[in-house]
Amino acid sequence: MAFLNDNYLKLKAGYLFPEIGRRVKAFTDANPEAAKRLIRCGIGDVTEALPDAVVKAMHKAVDEMASRATFKGYGPEQGYDWLRTAIAQHEFRAKGLDVADDEVFVSDGSKCDCGNILDILGSKNKIGVSDPVYPVYVDTNVMAGHTGDADANGAYAGLVYLPCTEANGFIPEPPKEHVDVIYLCSPNNPTGAAATRAQLEAWVKHALAHNAIILFDAAYEAYITEPGIPHSIYEIPGARECAIEFRSFSKHGGFTGTRCAYTVVPKSLKAATSSGEMLPLHPLWNRRMSTKFNGVPYIVQRGAEALFTTEGKAQVTALIEHYMGNARILSAGAKAAGLTVFGGVNAPYIWVKTPAGVGSWQAFDTILNGANVVITPGAGFGSKGEGYFRISSFNSRANAEEVSKRLQTLKW
Amino acid sequence: MAFLNDNYLKLKAGYLFPEIGRRVKAFTDANPEAAKRLIRCGIGDVTEALPDAVVKAMHKAVDEMASRATFKGYGPEQGYDWLRTAIAQHEFRAKGLDVADDEVFVSDGSKCDCGNILDILGSKNKIGVSDPVYPVYVDTNVMAGHTGDADANGAYAGLVYLPCTEANGFIPEPPKEHVDVIYLCSPNNPTGAAATRAQLEAWVKHALAHNAIILFDAAYEAYITEPGIPHSIYEIPGARECAIEFRSFSKHGGFTGTRCAYTVVPKSLKAATSSGEMLPLHPLWNRRMSTKFNGVPYIVQRGAEALFTTEGKAQVTALIEHYMGNARILSAGAKAAGLTVFGGVNAPYIWVKTPAGVGSWQAFDTILNGANVVITPGAGFGSKGEGYFRISSFNSRANAEEVSKRLQTLKW
Repeated sequence: MAFLNDNYLKLKAGYLFPEIGRRVKAFTDANPEAAKRLIRCGIGDVTEALPDAVVKAMHKAVDEMASRATFKGYGPEQGYDWLRTAIAQHEFRAKGLDVADDEVFVSDGSKCDCGNILDILGSKNKIGVSDPVYPVYVDTNVMAGHTGDADANGAYAGLVYLPCTEANGFIPEPPKEHVDVIYLCSPNNPTGAAATRAQLEAWVKHALAHNAIILFDAAYEAYITEPGIPHSIYEIPGARECAIEFRSFSKHGGFTGTRCAYTVVPKSLKAATSSGEMLPLHPLWNRRMSTKFNGVPYIVQRGAEALFTTEGKAQVTALIEHYMGNARILSAGAKAAGLTVFGGVNAPYIWVKTPAGVGSWQAFDTILNGANVVITPGAGFGSKGEGYFRISSFNSRANAEEVSKRLQTLKW
Repeated sequence: MAFLNDNYLKLKAGYLFPEIGRRVKAFTDANPEAAKRLIRCGIGDVTEALPDAVVKAMHKAVDEMASRATFKGYGPEQGYDWLRTAIAQHEFRAKGLDVADDEVFVSDGSKCDCGNILDILGSKNKIGVSDPVYPVYVDTNVMAGHTGDADANGAYAGLVYLPCTEANGFIPEPPKEHVDVIYLCSPNNPTGAAATRAQLEAWVKHALAHNAIILFDAAYEAYITEPGIPHSIYEIPGARECAIEFRSFSKHGGFTGTRCAYTVVPKSLKAATSSGEMLPLHPLWNRRMSTKFNGVPYIVQRGAEALFTTEGKAQVTALIEHYMGNARILSAGAKAAGLTVFGGVNAPYIWVKTPAGVGSWQAFDTILNGANVVITPGAGFGSKGEGYFRISSFNSRANAEEVSKRLQTLKW
């Protein structure tokens, strides 16, 4: 008799985005006229065209696939050398960070990597996640059997939740409880907060002291505008001995529908066998990628490579300025509406406090009905997200300006 | 203290293709002149250009990504509806097979899916694999902790190996031992054998009787030339209650470097919870794909869709005829050389018996040194592969003809 993985049955049924979809549909069905002016600032998906350098590179790559002399079959599972080198050189070594080409593993998405990384980690690790949190960190641990059941708030037994609050600037401190693996996301989704150097130094010190591993999600690093905020965990001495970093081309290169990301696994990073022997994780991840993955499409890797050209870099800068311009407009609008606003400075997300006594789902309904704008209720990201909502600045300039205006006319 | 996944330490260090690479390098370093005439018939990678219909569709899709009005961000994790429909319609329903659009999950590769499917299965299943076998089936089970250590032949304790021999036409019979999950690959890699309807009926009957699940890898189904050989497990009544099917665009669409495949999970397929309750697997796979995957690139999905156009189908037929023409030439050459030959009729692989007393690695060395041709030694696929070698027909016609000639002049 074949058995299924019981752990999947512990998962809460995709509570957040399906519920948003249900409420939006009910609203648009009941209000066809208002539906026409609906603006979506919910899901964090880019809206602008791919950079021209990427488009050109992908056309060229498609042409290469059209001729047997230049056709590409299976590539290296870890990514082509020219892309691994471009990443290591431009994103790390040019900035004084010690990352070797073969410590970079090209993949089809940070979401995938954040989930798949658990393949190479043991089953007895105590897992720390922030609250609120990107749901994939939690759900993949549930699937892997690292948790018990969820409580009424959706918090799973066995996980260590690290509160992100106004008091700590939405960056969690190292916990008193024991943790072996910690997920940190900076700049943060959903709060838009970015960890300072001192905060990351405290985390690296904690991880080294406890032989813990930091899974550092830097998918939004390109949105950092303030000087001094680390773009990489490897800016912190000692991080090569305790951290894996996830990066993506999705948010700054516009690759959400094109799919390319990468993960850095330093060769100096070790973890323990059951018997306590410390061994490097790099060969395990290399084996995982070789055995359960077959590389990113050649065409897509050529597109990603083009982001590192002079032309590509300028186009990425323009994209980020566009979205961060939206963030400033949305922040200003929310402030002018009398709301308390966080984030939006080093991240494309605005984290807004609901008016006193208004729950985050109630805020969702008010904004949908009163402004015909879709946002994301903070409670969907965890219990500490209650009392907040997230506005995404991935949109056209016109939509950002319109949302900013509507927020100011909203009656709470 | 963070723990690693100890099961990875049981893995034999990629014994097959790295060892081939080592021997080829030693040979070419020592024989620079002979190296110039080296022909590779080892790894099963396609060699011909992408079909023109695919190239056109991908250029069009790249152009769509270049304009914000037609830009595509995140797509459905399961694949775009238009591709799921095209697959279900052309590959199954047009052939009288009952597969719904939403039972088709588009992915970036069958290798990935064959490994990832273990995510949704329990840890107590007894696993059956053929011998010889595609190494990914075995290695992913080792990683998941479903085995003990390997013996001197590379066979892992805890797996049930199903011998594929000349006597059973290289298609294993259902075993006497208990198995919960069975991997079947037809047409087979590496032996090139294709299961008959009667053989698959026996497997489906066995699986239904034991509430077992068949993981049916049909990546090479497009290469079947003999009438009456099933292309899909769903041609067998009852298979919708016991089988998952893996399909790929890699081998017939030339997508090894472009990456698109799909897996069919029927809604009527159930597996047991720990407490013995039978539940459908479809929602679990849907959740797995939603949580740990973010879809195949839009551009690539448009390319795959083009394979189902009239133009695309004709171009696929031409590609298959090219490779199967090579297979006939290679088979004939090996036979003329006095060798006993299997496969090559319903699959692009020729499975050749080594001359009496010659081991498969010895055959590898003889063919490399004597004919300057790289093949794959059968022992690399499992102990029952000893005494055989695999010739891939993925090559140019000129190379296939040259290899055919060289085999006939080889001194054993």
